[in-house]
Amino acid sequence: MIFLPNWLKDYKKNQLNGDITAGIIVAVVLVPQAMAYGMLAGLPVEVALYSSTLPLILYAAFGSSRTLAVGPVGLMSLMTGATLIELNINNVNQMVSAAHTLAFLIGILLLSMRVAKLGAVINFLSHPVISGFVSASAIIIALSQAKHLLGLEIPRGLPSYQTLYHLTIKLPDANLATTALGVGSLMLLWCFKNPLSSLLNKKRVSDYIAQFISKSGPLVVVIFSTLCVYCLNLNSQHNVSMIGSIPSGLPTLLIPNVDSELIKTLLPNAILIALIGYLESVSIAKSMASQKRQKIDSNKELTGLGAANLASAFSGGYPVAGGFGRSMVNFSAGANSPLASIFSACLVALTLATLTPLFFFLPKAALAAIIVLAVLPLIDFHTFKHAWSYDRTDAFSMLITFFTVLIVDVESGILAGIILSIGLYLHRSSQPHIAVVGQVENTEHYRNIHRHKVKTDKAILALRVDENLYFANTNHLEDTIMELVADNPSINHVLLICSSISFIDTSALESLDDILYRLEKAGIQLHLAEIKGPVMDKLRKTAFIEKIGETNIFLSTHQAMESLKKLDNAPLKKDARL
Amino acid sequence: MIFLPNWLKDYKKNQLNGDITAGIIVAVVLVPQAMAYGMLAGLPVEVALYSSTLPLILYAAFGSSRTLAVGPVGLMSLMTGATLIELNINNVNQMVSAAHTLAFLIGILLLSMRVAKLGAVINFLSHPVISGFVSASAIIIALSQAKHLLGLEIPRGLPSYQTLYHLTIKLPDANLATTALGVGSLMLLWCFKNPLSSLLNKKRVSDYIAQFISKSGPLVVVIFSTLCVYCLNLNSQHNVSMIGSIPSGLPTLLIPNVDSELIKTLLPNAILIALIGYLESVSIAKSMASQKRQKIDSNKELTGLGAANLASAFSGGYPVAGGFGRSMVNFSAGANSPLASIFSACLVALTLATLTPLFFFLPKAALAAIIVLAVLPLIDFHTFKHAWSYDRTDAFSMLITFFTVLIVDVESGILAGIILSIGLYLHRSSQPHIAVVGQVENTEHYRNIHRHKVKTDKAILALRVDENLYFANTNHLEDTIMELVADNPSINHVLLICSSISFIDTSALESLDDILYRLEKAGIQLHLAEIKGPVMDKLRKTAFIEKIGETNIFLSTHQAMESLKKLDNAPLKKDARL
Repeated sequence: MIFLPNWLKDYKKNQLNGDITAGIIVAVVLVPQAMAYGMLAGLPVEVALYSSTLPLILYAAFGSSRTLAVGPVGLMSLMTGATLIELNINNVNQMVSAAHTLAFLIGILLLSMRVAKLGAVINFLSHPVISGFVSASAIIIALSQAKHLLGLEIPRGLPSYQTLYHLTIKLPDANLATTALGVGSLMLLWCFKNPLSSLLNKKRVSDYIAQFISKSGPLVVVIFSTLCVYCLNLNSQHNVSMIGSIPSGLPTLLIPNVDSELIKTLLPNAILIALIGYLESVSIAKSMASQKRQKIDSNKELTGLGAANLASAFSGGYPVAGGFGRSMVNFSAGANSPLASIFSACLVALTLATLTPLFFFLPKAALAAIIVLAVLPLIDFHTFKHAWSYDRTDAFSMLITFFTVLIVDVESGILAGIILSIGLYLHRSSQPHIAVVGQVENTEHYRNIHRHKVKTDKAILALRVDENLYFANTNHLEDTIMELVADNPSINHVLLICSSISFIDTSALESLDDILYRLEKAGIQLHLAEIKGPVMDKLRKTAFIEKIGETNIFLSTHQAMESLKKLDNAPLKKDARL
Repeated sequence: MIFLPNWLKDYKKNQLNGDITAGIIVAVVLVPQAMAYGMLAGLPVEVALYSSTLPLILYAAFGSSRTLAVGPVGLMSLMTGATLIELNINNVNQMVSAAHTLAFLIGILLLSMRVAKLGAVINFLSHPVISGFVSASAIIIALSQAKHLLGLEIPRGLPSYQTLYHLTIKLPDANLATTALGVGSLMLLWCFKNPLSSLLNKKRVSDYIAQFISKSGPLVVVIFSTLCVYCLNLNSQHNVSMIGSIPSGLPTLLIPNVDSELIKTLLPNAILIALIGYLESVSIAKSMASQKRQKIDSNKELTGLGAANLASAFSGGYPVAGGFGRSMVNFSAGANSPLASIFSACLVALTLATLTPLFFFLPKAALAAIIVLAVLPLIDFHTFKHAWSYDRTDAFSMLITFFTVLIVDVESGILAGIILSIGLYLHRSSQPHIAVVGQVENTEHYRNIHRHKVKTDKAILALRVDENLYFANTNHLEDTIMELVADNPSINHVLLICSSISFIDTSALESLDDILYRLEKAGIQLHLAEIKGPVMDKLRKTAFIEKIGETNIFLSTHQAMESLKKLDNAPLKKDARL
């Protein structure tokens, strides 16, 4: 039986047109972008082009998104570059080989996550942390390209403030021709992005042509700047640095180096890169799928990305993921199925086979300009402003992540962000909101005495706990109850309203036992109300229910309050109880 | 102005009697126990005796518990011993000096926790993890004493299975006289604990005398075994190992070694020991205070314990904490105030000044027997059985902690336990219970459709989320809603019942925005009901409320369902909406 992905089985003829268009437009964006990202990772540009062929086809076969454009992406190129620098290799071939190994590791990690069903682990990255991380990374990427735009020599892999320092002191040495090419490229790209798009819109050019023209900015920059260098002899006369010779031909299959020492060194970063790549791809895929009411299967995504990275490793590439910019291009150019990606891959292969000699005179400044314009939109002030006004702790996590990435490095930044988000969440849930409630007059509703005008009974303390009870917050509950009881000597009954409690762990159960015991010692009775079904099911199996007594457990708060009032007003019964 | 603790200001004459009695009985228990714990830590016994003088007085001045008996304790002695072994020091003086530094570090850490208000950090140790940790530590302690009971030479600091292995193969070499003394001591101590206590109860001996006799087991064992060794000449003839000479006199003040390299090495373990010591002390103090309706101030506890450890460091001692056994003795002997501890400290000082020559012939086997009988009650099967039947994940954390402590070491065990508890909690809260609810007929109550016979409306999907919304669970919510909507094409309205939601973080807010957008794209309207006051206050500041529309937010579920039904039955309005 031949393996056929779902989209291929249901393929309809009328989808082909959109797929071809999108495939071509994406290829036009992909070739220059891939070369630029290869440069960002500090690798020869052909490595990035190789990553733009086979991985796309493997993702088309195994992934679940119909429009995700897989290939080299900015964040992963940055992280790959940082990882390779840490290896302290000076030999380019060894560096390329380590990049294959990294892609191999990432592929294996993603597939293992699929097998262990650990895809949900990315849920522990909060949005503000991701936003802080992406914004800071975008700044680092843009800064790292400044030297190419200005024709300066600055060591790679420095923290951003050092890069900035070097840039400032070396600015007078900037190469004028390179700077002119760089600034010119930036301006040209900006024109394609903004004025040209609106112009085409106004002129009512057909959608197909408009799409093609507005997305071909990078290609035009590549052609134009190459011609400049070639015709004006900028290389030999003005020392403009170029891409140089790219080996012609398709990628060949190879076995990545699996030296155990190398793997051990790469593993920690590989885990982070795999997580970030997966996270980025899934979020993009989900946001596109929901617009067409398609489903994204996170597990299939892991398989697809894992397979794509393995393909990259075995065909001479480096780590890949779904890219935001190109996926949007693919989606808006009308891609209906992963066939579009397969067309793109074929066009990149064609470029590799025939066009590489044309890139000889391509100046690095042009590629740097493409990177800068691709990452600038990722700098996200909006989320920070929003978080700041809505929730300061989130804004705080975001700032810490942002500055740790900028000042220390990408890996420490993301780790600090994760630890901080989880820590702050735990801190929050360890001090649950506990409200003393009273009756809203003439209703059966009970509300917080500090927020509503309510009636209370001085012999009854009714408390609503707004959080699940677990080990980290039971002490807080115990302390709150004991303090309230100590401060109000008239209390004979404590009623715990459990409407917000969906689980009580073993520590919390012991703590409730303790509260019951301590209240009893003080001559006070404990009652529970509004226990949820699943919680009650578990409690029924314990001795706690016998100790507190089934009659002290009430379905509703109102019911509880009514019977407790009766109990307190019946003097005989009360005496008997005490 | 002279500094006076609260208890001293309100001191009443009639409290003195109880304090003197308790002070004497605790001293009787403390002297042999301290020597035993000193041996457990691998330190000369006088170090532990020094730790039983000044620290008690400092705690009396700064602590908040009236009956906590501070001094050398089993767990901290074990952990101190393990920490010192890691230093690979062979010189006893250097080892003692490192113990002072450890106590100094712990004192500083506890005081820093006080200043940073970080006392709540111990809340993140769940009861099952603590129980697993304590049980395994008790086994390790008991095993470590077996060599003293049998007179064997076994290296210290081995994992417990290796200690067991050495014990087994060396068993034939056991020293008969030592074994006889050890087993005899064990039996004598057991008699004092059980048969003698009940006998005294039956004979109606006065409380004071009974207390004194039943608690003097360790003292009797010390005297009796010392006499045996001395009279029968067991040392020279049978090679029974004894305590030997203890320097006579009170501890002298000294400055602990604060070498930065040593501090760096000790710090990680010091943090764990400080946490465990604080945790143990606070739990004991709380359980005693609640029986007398007194309050424990966790912050004052940090100050008290911090001061006690600093005092220990500066007076030649090692880390101290509140001990369970002795505190119970103190409490039940009628201690009314920390004056009891001051009496104990004075008696220990008196012992140091005059009685140390008497301990020369004290056999180590007797001290080992005292340790074993003190720690055996800490092995806690009950909590495991309870956790197993109530909550398997808690039982699982407990087992992992237990075996990590036994097989790897104490520090790894407690760390594994903490990480596991937090991880499991996060996992649980990242997959919140989401119930589809329907109306209980003829009431205004809405319940889970899978647990109750309820009425639903096929155009309205009413969901109750039983958890706060935060970054780790928003994806789950999004996926659940989208799946339910995809599977039920008749749905026009989604109603989110927020009765269990006490906070929504920035990520979750963005996610709600996303859900609103995606539902709108699919022609479905989102509504919210039963939003809590504090949550609504925060939401009001956001654009989300405008987007969803104030009219789509309802006070109660019933109100929401009634208006949605009306909306759906009014065809004109519905058409207008679509």
